[in-house]
Amino acid sequence: MPGESDFINWIRTQQRSGQNIILPAGDDLAILRWSSDDLLVAGVDQVLDGVHFDSSKHTPRSIGQKVMNRNLSDCAAMACLPVAALATVALPANCNLSYAKELYLGLKSAADPFDCAIIGGDTASWPHPLAFTVTILARSAGIQPITRRHARPGDAIYVTGPLGGSILGRHMTFSPRIHEARDLATRFPLTAMIDLSDGLSRDLAHICQQSGVGAIVESSLVPIHPDAIELSRQDHRPPLQHALHDGEDYELLFTCSGPCDSAIRIGRITAGQGLQLQTDQGLQPLPSLGWQHSI
Amino acid sequence: MPGESDFINWIRTQQRSGQNIILPAGDDLAILRWSSDDLLVAGVDQVLDGVHFDSSKHTPRSIGQKVMNRNLSDCAAMACLPVAALATVALPANCNLSYAKELYLGLKSAADPFDCAIIGGDTASWPHPLAFTVTILARSAGIQPITRRHARPGDAIYVTGPLGGSILGRHMTFSPRIHEARDLATRFPLTAMIDLSDGLSRDLAHICQQSGVGAIVESSLVPIHPDAIELSRQDHRPPLQHALHDGEDYELLFTCSGPCDSAIRIGRITAGQGLQLQTDQGLQPLPSLGWQHSI
Repeated sequence: MPGESDFINWIRTQQRSGQNIILPAGDDLAILRWSSDDLLVAGVDQVLDGVHFDSSKHTPRSIGQKVMNRNLSDCAAMACLPVAALATVALPANCNLSYAKELYLGLKSAADPFDCAIIGGDTASWPHPLAFTVTILARSAGIQPITRRHARPGDAIYVTGPLGGSILGRHMTFSPRIHEARDLATRFPLTAMIDLSDGLSRDLAHICQQSGVGAIVESSLVPIHPDAIELSRQDHRPPLQHALHDGEDYELLFTCSGPCDSAIRIGRITAGQGLQLQTDQGLQPLPSLGWQHSI
Repeated sequence: MPGESDFINWIRTQQRSGQNIILPAGDDLAILRWSSDDLLVAGVDQVLDGVHFDSSKHTPRSIGQKVMNRNLSDCAAMACLPVAALATVALPANCNLSYAKELYLGLKSAADPFDCAIIGGDTASWPHPLAFTVTILARSAGIQPITRRHARPGDAIYVTGPLGGSILGRHMTFSPRIHEARDLATRFPLTAMIDLSDGLSRDLAHICQQSGVGAIVESSLVPIHPDAIELSRQDHRPPLQHALHDGEDYELLFTCSGPCDSAIRIGRITAGQGLQLQTDQGLQPLPSLGWQHSI
């Protein structure tokens, strides 16, 4: 059965260009020219019970926080500033009002620190699990949005924090790197950026595909989160494998054409195609094993 | 169990005001001041299998058309012009790529006539029925958006077409009244407007509540759709009851402080509160029996 990326690739072929659409579907967010003053950067991200959270385990407040933070992390990925959000919720028929309020308060507690207002939405109920979607509206606010498209051979590759094992809990509790992204974009010559939601190997492949380049990741430089080590004890897969392939780290992955002392360098962009891993045994292919929905 | 409106009313109490939020949650769309040039009018609307459509009966193309047209109808309700849309879909696990493409082509076929571009979205799959959400981004484009808030005693109440019985098929195939709305807003002193999604009695109550007024509907003036008569034959409820209370007509309901010869007058706004129906037997209360999700 084809994967989500087949559908998204097909959708791209359907896109119309237009003078006000600066960047259509396929990046973290779309970019529109809304006025002479500023760009409108807009996107949407959903969480589904049993896929992105487990309603039997996670509180409604933490579910609301997660869906808002995923959208805020998309803003971070483009170094733009969130302004407003719309929330759409399909509530299970047995859900009560206090559960619904907790979902909303989760949204709000994640949005408030970034001064992002929840301006509307849509609520319905059905006899199926919770589906929760947030639309984010952002401004470029003085910083040209960083896309996935301009990584060049010779650029260094960086991440903003240690990776792997987020399934142990961090995937619900991460902090979107908006301030970090805007600081990086202001101080360093960033060429491409993405937030790590699908996993390092898959998200780096997204940048490489859209920039028409390849990459070499140095295994000794990949920062490994303590959760990756803990998870490794449980499943006996090496911590590095978790750091390379686990999803939902929500750190930033970016390329930079000059030195950057505010993040962790993990490799470099190359001419050609494909991802490789530099180890003690030499270069080997780095497959994209991260998260992909099957449809 | 409380209804959706309890949740929405509670959400309203949580809203922050802000200098750039002109109209927060509770109308058809929210209004933001985005720049010195133009307003950004934004909203979201979802359709759920078994609630808003029946995937065993309706084609994926017609489902895509419906969710887009519901959002375009929200634009009509405020007399604004759609610019771009984002699509979020939770696909059933057994859904194939061609079904997903048909959903998208349905979106596109509804959006294209209004020059509305689909600029992005989010796709995931899960082992549950289809949930499909569209976010609409619109411009005021020279016409002050018409809200639900400024109906005044003495205003006449109008609808743009015959009502009732949409469940026989029209709820999937309606045309959003965008051109009609902008024409009306240009030529006549409209004071409030909404699109008829919940049913006349409930949607008129939304206008009355948000404007702080009451209304009298004249039963002899309510235009009855042939579908309401057909449905009446099946369920033996009077056609007028279908016209007053059925949902998903997607005609416009508006109030106007002067005469309007381009729509059907059905009553008038009064001081005080509550909806009444003028019949041969005199005035009687008009309950809001239209569509309400239970949560």
